[in-house]
Order: sequence, then structure tokens, then C-alpha cells
Amino acid sequence: MNLVNSEQQQWEMQALESFMAMVKAPDGDIESVRHLSNSLSDTYSFRLMVEFLSRHPQGRQAFQERPCIGHVNLQQLNQLPEYTFGYAYANHMLGNGLTPLQADQLPHDDHSFLMWHLAETHDIWHVITGCDTNILGEIELQAFSAAQFSASRLWLALLSKNLLKAAVHNIEISGQYMDALTQGWVRGKQAKPLFGIKWNTLWEMPLEQLRTQLNLNPVFTKAVEAIV
Amino acid sequence: MNLVNSEQQQWEMQALESFMAMVKAPDGDIESVRHLSNSLSDTYSFRLMVEFLSRHPQGRQAFQERPCIGHVNLQQLNQLPEYTFGYAYANHMLGNGLTPLQADQLPHDDHSFLMWHLAETHDIWHVITGCDTNILGEIELQAFSAAQFSASRLWLALLSKNLLKAAVHNIEISGQYMDALTQGWVRGKQAKPLFGIKWNTLWEMPLEQLRTQLNLNPVFTKAVEAIV
Repeated sequence: MNLVNSEQQQWEMQALESFMAMVKAPDGDIESVRHLSNSLSDTYSFRLMVEFLSRHPQGRQAFQERPCIGHVNLQQLNQLPEYTFGYAYANHMLGNGLTPLQADQLPHDDHSFLMWHLAETHDIWHVITGCDTNILGEIELQAFSAAQFSASRLWLALLSKNLLKAAVHNIEISGQYMDALTQGWVRGKQAKPLFGIKWNTLWEMPLEQLRTQLNLNPVFTKAVEAIV
Repeated sequence: MNLVNSEQQQWEMQALESFMAMVKAPDGDIESVRHLSNSLSDTYSFRLMVEFLSRHPQGRQAFQERPCIGHVNLQQLNQLPEYTFGYAYANHMLGNGLTPLQADQLPHDDHSFLMWHLAETHDIWHVITGCDTNILGEIELQAFSAAQFSASRLWLALLSKNLLKAAVHNIEISGQYMDALTQGWVRGKQAKPLFGIKWNTLWEMPLEQLRTQLNLNPVFTKAVEAIV
């Protein structure tokens, strides 16, 4: 942490407080995620993430061009053939009563772009990885994201929160939580980087072909599934 | 939880308080582990663990016979050939300045036996799994133990604590924390049950042979290591 001591202590205290608020909130409580995200946000870990993501040409280019998905016509995507990525995305959004995010203003620096890209593509990551929107799917995607972003305080804190909730409230299914976490971490490490992909140019691609290209469905994952 | 509402709330509050105390304590602070262990202890999850462990004949027999390791002469074990389990154990204990635990009184029921066996064999589990005593080794062994005990609130809470500490204090090496957790979970699931093994009858066995028998070194682990 590049902070002086008292600032650091205050930051840590706030981070732990918002963590506990998150533990006490019901699963999927967006407001407490937002609060935790703000509390954990700092320039140091942000810089680590940008450095990590910029190692790959796709990530470097994304920070230069700051691509946004922009307006998405879900009804139109829903008319695409069922095997396409666009159809799968529309189906996911419409089926879960979700609407694509609309930016109030375009991201103006690396930090705001990273945060915006994360928010804007979260549902797409669900679709492309095949992670469900239930708690197990969220845990798998949190671990996947932790691997893909390398130094994300938020994803780690969310995983920690979920393991603590398993310990206190859901010990019966804690094994499924751990399986989901393991699965997500291994898949996130072996997949190609998803950060910076211009998803809105890929709607018509077959979903399975896209998954194969991104190394999201290799044989090894199946082997992990067989034992976890 | 088989508790009425207010009792449950109080139990949860105490559990979360001792969790936070553990987060604020330095790594390896035994007193806060003990406190957390006591706070999380309850008859419901204990029963789940006993049921799970008793599915295997070795576990069932252990609850009937309640075997204890008893007195161990480390100097004597240290004279065994270097390839033996006994030598590795003595070497581990002497090298880390540890002495085998001595029971004040023999365990008199399933609960006290389970707790005692856990404590008495913890160092042996380090040796047999090859998990180091540094934080990464502890995390791997916590995840391994979570898999082997199935419904342990303590191991899950310790893993949660370590991920939270990674998020707040050690984001640079959080990937290693996640690798260790994943590694431990996968190995714990694929290994044969270690609970109830009469370790004091095995000192002269070659360590590698014992690991192979217990499925602690299969090819699959190597494949995971290669990618995590």
C-alpha cells in the first residue's frame, strides 16, 4: 500500500467493515457489493491490475481504445440462430430479466474504463463461461475473475465472504462452494484473457467455437470436473 | 442449525466476532485459532462430520477404538533410515522446534476424540501431504482438511480468513494463496481418508510408498500443478 500508516489503518478498517456488512447482507445484494468495491478500491492494486492486463496485446489495446459495447438490441440478437453467442446472450438477459448497462458518460481514464468494462461485460462473462447466476455460478465466476484480473481485492473479498457464509450458514453445501471456487480458478488461469474483447463484434459467432478459441472448454476442465 | 432463533443469532455473532479477531491477528496465532474453533463448534456440524467420516470403515473403527498416538520418541525416530515416514516426521518436528502433543486425559466421546485426533495428527498431516508450515502450506493443508472432513466450519473459516487477508494485506501474492487452496482441495478430495489412520504403526514405512498408498501423489496432482 502506498499510503502513510494512519491512512492505511483507516482504509483497512473501512475495508473490513464493508466486508462484514457484505457477510450480513443476503446473497446478490448489489448495494453491499458496490460499497465493498468502493472500500477496497485503491491506486496500488489498480496499477497492479493494469500492468497485468497490459502484458497481453489485447489488454494493452483495450486501455488505448477503451472500447464500449454500447447499445444492444436484445430482441434483435434473440432472432439469431440458437447456436450463436448473440442468441445465448440475449436469451440469458431476457430469461433473467436483465437489461444491458448504459453508460452515463464514456470512461475517461484507465481506472474508469476498467471499472466500466468489468460492469458492462459481467453478464457476458456469465454466458461465455457458462457460469450460472445462482450462488455456485457466482462463486465460480468470482474465482475465474480473480484469476483473470490477478490482483483484484474485490473478487478475493467476495470469495472470502462466500466461504465465511458457507462456514456459518451453509455448511451442508460448503463442498459445492469449494468445488465452484476451484473450478473457476483453474478455468480462469487456463482460459485466454477475456479482458478487452470487443464482444459486440462477435454476436454471430457460434458460442461453442468462441469458447474453444478462448480455451474455455479444454479437456483438462473435464478432468477437473470429474474429480471435484 | 438446531438452535432456536435468538441462540442462533448469538452463535453467529460470536462466530463473526472471533473471525474478525482472527483476521486482525498475525498468521499462526494459535490463541485466535483456538478461539475461532470454539466459537464455531456446534453439535450440528459435528454430527455431519462424524457421519461423513464414518462412511469409511477406517473412520467408523476409529470412532469405536479412539486410537491415540501416545508418546513419541523423536530422537529414536530420527535414527530411522531417511526414506521412512518416521524419520520425515521426526525431522519435521525437530527442525521446526515442535514437540508431539500429550493428552491430559484420553478422549471420552466422539467429539473429544475428533478434536483430539485433529490436534494430535496435524503435524503428521503436514509431513504426509508435504505441505510446508509457511502460510501457503497452511492454506493448502486447510483446503485439504476441508475436503477430508467435509463439513468443517473451522477449516472453511480459516480459508476465508486467509483470502480476506490476501485481499487486504497481500494482494501481490494472492494468486499463490489461490493456487495453494485449489491444490489442497483437489488433493484432499482425491486422497484416501487420513482420519483414523494409526500413524504410530507406520513409522518404518517408506514415506513415498505411504503417499502412493494414500493417493497423495497421483499423476493428476502433477497435471494440476502444471497449470495452477
